[in-house]
Amino acid sequence: MKSYRKELWFNVPTRRAFLNITPKVEACLYESGIQEGLVLVNAMHITASVFINDDERGLHQDYDDWLEELAPHEPVGRYRHNRTGEDNADAHMKRQVMGREVVVAITDGSLDFGPWEQIFYGEFDGRRRKRVLVKIIGE
Amino acid sequence: MKSYRKELWFNVPTRRAFLNITPKVEACLYESGIQEGLVLVNAMHITASVFINDDERGLHQDYDDWLEELAPHEPVGRYRHNRTGEDNADAHMKRQVMGREVVVAITDGSLDFGPWEQIFYGEFDGRRRKRVLVKIIGE
Amino acid sequence: MKSYRKELWFNVPTRRAFLNITPKVEACLYESGIQEGLVLVNAMHITASVFINDDERGLHQDYDDWLEELAPHEPVGRYRHNRTGEDNADAHMKRQVMGREVVVAITDGSLDFGPWEQIFYGEFDGRRRKRVLVKIIGE
Repeated sequence: MKSYRKELWFNVPTRRAFLNITPKVEACLYESGIQEGLVLVNAMHITASVFINDDERGLHQDYDDWLEELAPHEPVGRYRHNRTGEDNADAHMKRQVMGREVVVAITDGSLDFGPWEQIFYGEFDGRRRKRVLVKIIGE
Repeated sequence: MKSYRKELWFNVPTRRAFLNITPKVEACLYESGIQEGLVLVNAMHITASVFINDDERGLHQDYDDWLEELAPHEPVGRYRHNRTGEDNADAHMKRQVMGREVVVAITDGSLDFGPWEQIFYGEFDGRRRKRVLVKIIGE
Repeated sequence: MKSYRKELWFNVPTRRAFLNITPKVEACLYESGIQEGLVLVNAMHITASVFINDDERGLHQDYDDWLEELAPHEPVGRYRHNRTGEDNADAHMKRQVMGREVVVAITDGSLDFGPWEQIFYGEFDGRRRKRVLVKIIGE
């Protein structure tokens, strides 16, 4: 069994954003030389997500509106977590809806994807350096 | 390390449905001959889910009602994504709540499940052929 | 490839609670002797979650309030599932928002975590014995 590990770093200038990280994960896979196995891609921070969906700008705006409806950023005082001096309680909720991680099959040295699957980093509390972990195991 | 891959195809006649795919995944596992490892089961489409829960009809109707509350199908014009000519923005949201994938342990050649765990394909934009990927790694 | 399996048992005295199970998962990893690989930690019951987030009491209260807004326990009669004699339909929904499982990378014999990542058991229908599965594969 082979294993491979890499951290991807991001510094999103806004509070929230969705970044297509598929090419970066593909570069990791190529570098690993692994042909058959699984790749785990997870946010290493608890106010961010890694998820798979469509690379369509309108949809991303819909996601942002929808997550704000489900867990509004303001008023920040509505969340107990924010009494610790944070203002990111909503980000901890948005991240649960969108998920921490994805596991993707590797077949013949490629991400084994359906026609529209793309991997996104979902930032919900940006404006600082944060990381995603790529871990691959296989042969 | 052994690996196994299979696509399961579905053509759900309605927009939304939940299908118990546990026997199909078990058939894959038997075919693979793998005794110890992990199985990844994921929707290959971005308006569908694979999730684990109870095979109880009332619960599935509750899920359908609840997801319609969280992300209503209509009015379709409320979603920017639907301005591309689609009418399935809500399906992209429902799928995030229910999840893209499950990873299940394989122990002694069986799905290592609790008493009520069953694997479902959750369709949120049906009436066409769509796929689920089963990838198994182990020994 | 090595594999390891353990069940963790819980009996939460309240209907809902969040328990930090990170030390228990670390003990499993140590016992396994596995240095590189993946660990799957999943609820074996369908009204409970395993998820990764922050160990902050205020946040956990926020999660509880928020999940009650998204899928209220009462009135229990609003859910078809509860006509079977159950009163836990809401727990099946809360668990979908928070997720069934996490997959964590193992690097150099440790859980490969970001600075605040901790693993929680999320109970949404407690007051009885329930289980979490820890399955590790690697070398």
